[in-house]
Amino acid sequence: SVPPGVLPLCRRLPAWGRAVRQHPGLPLAPCRAFSNNKIQVEMNESSGVATMKFKSPPVNSLSLDFLTEFCISLEKLENDRACRGVILTSAIPKIFSSGLDITEMCGKSTEHYAEFWRAVQEIWLRLYSSNMVTLAVINGSSPAGGCLIALSCDYRIMAENPKYTIGLNEAQLGIVAPFWFKDTFVNVVGQRVAERSLQLGSLYPAPEALKFGIVDELVPEEKLQEKATAVMAQWLALPDHARQITKSMMRKTVLDRLVAHREEDIKNFISFVSKESIQKSLRMYMEMLKKKKS
Amino acid sequence: SVPPGVLPLCRRLPAWGRAVRQHPGLPLAPCRAFSNNKIQVEMNESSGVATMKFKSPPVNSLSLDFLTEFCISLEKLENDRACRGVILTSAIPKIFSSGLDITEMCGKSTEHYAEFWRAVQEIWLRLYSSNMVTLAVINGSSPAGGCLIALSCDYRIMAENPKYTIGLNEAQLGIVAPFWFKDTFVNVVGQRVAERSLQLGSLYPAPEALKFGIVDELVPEEKLQEKATAVMAQWLALPDHARQITKSMMRKTVLDRLVAHREEDIKNFISFVSKESIQKSLRMYMEMLKKKKS
Amino acid sequence: SVPPGVLPLCRRLPAWGRAVRQHPGLPLAPCRAFSNNKIQVEMNESSGVATMKFKSPPVNSLSLDFLTEFCISLEKLENDRACRGVILTSAIPKIFSSGLDITEMCGKSTEHYAEFWRAVQEIWLRLYSSNMVTLAVINGSSPAGGCLIALSCDYRIMAENPKYTIGLNEAQLGIVAPFWFKDTFVNVVGQRVAERSLQLGSLYPAPEALKFGIVDELVPEEKLQEKATAVMAQWLALPDHARQITKSMMRKTVLDRLVAHREEDIKNFISFVSKESIQKSLRMYMEMLKKKKS
Repeated sequence: SVPPGVLPLCRRLPAWGRAVRQHPGLPLAPCRAFSNNKIQVEMNESSGVATMKFKSPPVNSLSLDFLTEFCISLEKLENDRACRGVILTSAIPKIFSSGLDITEMCGKSTEHYAEFWRAVQEIWLRLYSSNMVTLAVINGSSPAGGCLIALSCDYRIMAENPKYTIGLNEAQLGIVAPFWFKDTFVNVVGQRVAERSLQLGSLYPAPEALKFGIVDELVPEEKLQEKATAVMAQWLALPDHARQITKSMMRKTVLDRLVAHREEDIKNFISFVSKESIQKSLRMYMEMLKKKKS
Repeated sequence: SVPPGVLPLCRRLPAWGRAVRQHPGLPLAPCRAFSNNKIQVEMNESSGVATMKFKSPPVNSLSLDFLTEFCISLEKLENDRACRGVILTSAIPKIFSSGLDITEMCGKSTEHYAEFWRAVQEIWLRLYSSNMVTLAVINGSSPAGGCLIALSCDYRIMAENPKYTIGLNEAQLGIVAPFWFKDTFVNVVGQRVAERSLQLGSLYPAPEALKFGIVDELVPEEKLQEKATAVMAQWLALPDHARQITKSMMRKTVLDRLVAHREEDIKNFISFVSKESIQKSLRMYMEMLKKKKS
Repeated sequence: SVPPGVLPLCRRLPAWGRAVRQHPGLPLAPCRAFSNNKIQVEMNESSGVATMKFKSPPVNSLSLDFLTEFCISLEKLENDRACRGVILTSAIPKIFSSGLDITEMCGKSTEHYAEFWRAVQEIWLRLYSSNMVTLAVINGSSPAGGCLIALSCDYRIMAENPKYTIGLNEAQLGIVAPFWFKDTFVNVVGQRVAERSLQLGSLYPAPEALKFGIVDELVPEEKLQEKATAVMAQWLALPDHARQITKSMMRKTVLDRLVAHREEDIKNFISFVSKESIQKSLRMYMEMLKKKKS
């Protein structure tokens, strides 16, 4: 399901991460719980459902390390024939993911910016085109890149808590959401809601997120697990093959667009993030976050 | 309104079926009730509205014979200047149409599969591009190809009966809805509802079909006729010419896509349906239906 | 923000109208209230918000003079760095704008038709691509071209009065809405609502307009001003640059389509409006309007 030309990040992956894909005829080792550092993966072998729990304090920000681990874990599951669905959720209270890690975008080299942005693209390409059923269980706030992760899944359940917000709020920081963030958003909420929300950088409390179609269902936080199991079972009741081809047909146009403009998109990111004005506001933003903490 | 290259099926049509199109200046014979076999056509000459009643027991499945007759009847009406609108409905209780006839896809020759699929394409091309106002009066369940027929009309009224369901449920049978089924669906319900529904092969009870925009209105079954007359009158109050060009402008992209990939789409169908695994599951499915009946 | 090739109308503009764009480094004269004839412009220098009040009795129809003045005023504001947002509203009770002025389309020369249509295109290109926040405060009915003006803004507030209607009702007059009217409409309400509404030439009373997404909010007429100020403040709270690029990204495809087919679109308009049958029905329509008045 991964479009051609999508693998550069994985040249850095350990060999075990790609073994199955390269030799699809080989017998598969049973996949059990594994955890590197920032993401805890549990596999229920009877249901064929894996759960990936983001556990990168304080706010599950998408650092290069986090993205690399996310990519490795996702590929491992993708290549595991016993795994048919994956649930993405957070092990940290009140936050699903805070989005891109700003420290990766501040005072680093051009090479670092390129590597970081390629990793962001990579995780989206893999998640949006995954052959598995992907279910976001949004048990906390999910701004910007965190929202993108949720939007890239097949279905979104959110905790029924108006204190949790979700949205592509890049514009509020003076940043423009990349075209493929926009495309993914339009595919979920339609052109009009996307146009207004992206311009305003809207963060929606859970009830409004439901109203505008950003998430599919709200559930009391203590029922999230139970609901996730039920929803996943409903999706897994379908034959994989027809579902996978259907998904690919629905998402192909948008996936192809990034694949076709990937290098250009990296250059744009570098040129944007290297501006002194942007560096300055990112530094100020980080100062503000530090003060807030202490 | 029919795009170029759409007429191969009609080479098989009797000459009377195409006379008007070829000689648009000739006087037209008044169109009255006619019925071949599987579709009953009545023409109300004072209102200019024809009613096509599907009457092919047990479940109005879209066999090659049904599709051919459908195509002939539709073309006859299309070429009749006195006919401005057509109502599609069923003469069989509880079912609008059960969709493609599986017996046409089972144990037949490659040539037969090609002929059958071309007929399915043909009826969609004609219906989706019809110059007439097309109104689906859905007085029973309407899965898969039956749903496509309804989606291709200008407006959909459904009986307010939660036992009647409608949807593109191909995925449930392990089949992928063709891209032009998908395009037609997206044009009605939008990308997100289509993506979820096609992957899950969802069949919606009437109230949910209304909620998701698959149909435009629900009406108690005994009021369907009356409502259909009122809705048709509303559409016919508009000047034909502007309405026809507007319709063509709205649907052109999607019509052009099938016209451009028609032969490829036929090849894909043949290659899919000829697989031993598919033949096997279709045979099992037919066995199950037979047992259910007895 | 204006796409290349969009400026022919402005060759007719006085030099002051383009000075700022051509010399972006020059100091700007403070922009205060100005009014030529048909549009009253007020500038609040502390908020950076201009208000354009349509004041062309009896019904703010879009004549060539009105459009030219609209274009000049809009460009003047666009080039004024102190102006970040513009509110479009009407100074005439019960009507926002009645749409294109039919007298411009009746009994005139081919050259006149071309000039008129180019001016209609121009105002849409400028408004739809404006760098300012554009807010339509719809304090009266707004059919056809009047609806297009509203649809081209970033946000629409309408008076909560069911006697006021809005919609692209061209089909009711036997006219086909141009493809870029359609594109703008689809971007606001989606494909399905646009397909049905354009074919039926639907004019929606305010409550239905809200339901179908044609406007974003209804407000009691006496609260319109207050609400407009609040909404504008919300939009202006965002950094301009990110908002502008985001807007451009969302609207580019549709803007580019007219720019690419502009001359063809003018030819189509001339060929349509020059038909004797159309001239006849426009004359009849004007007679009807005259009788209605007296």
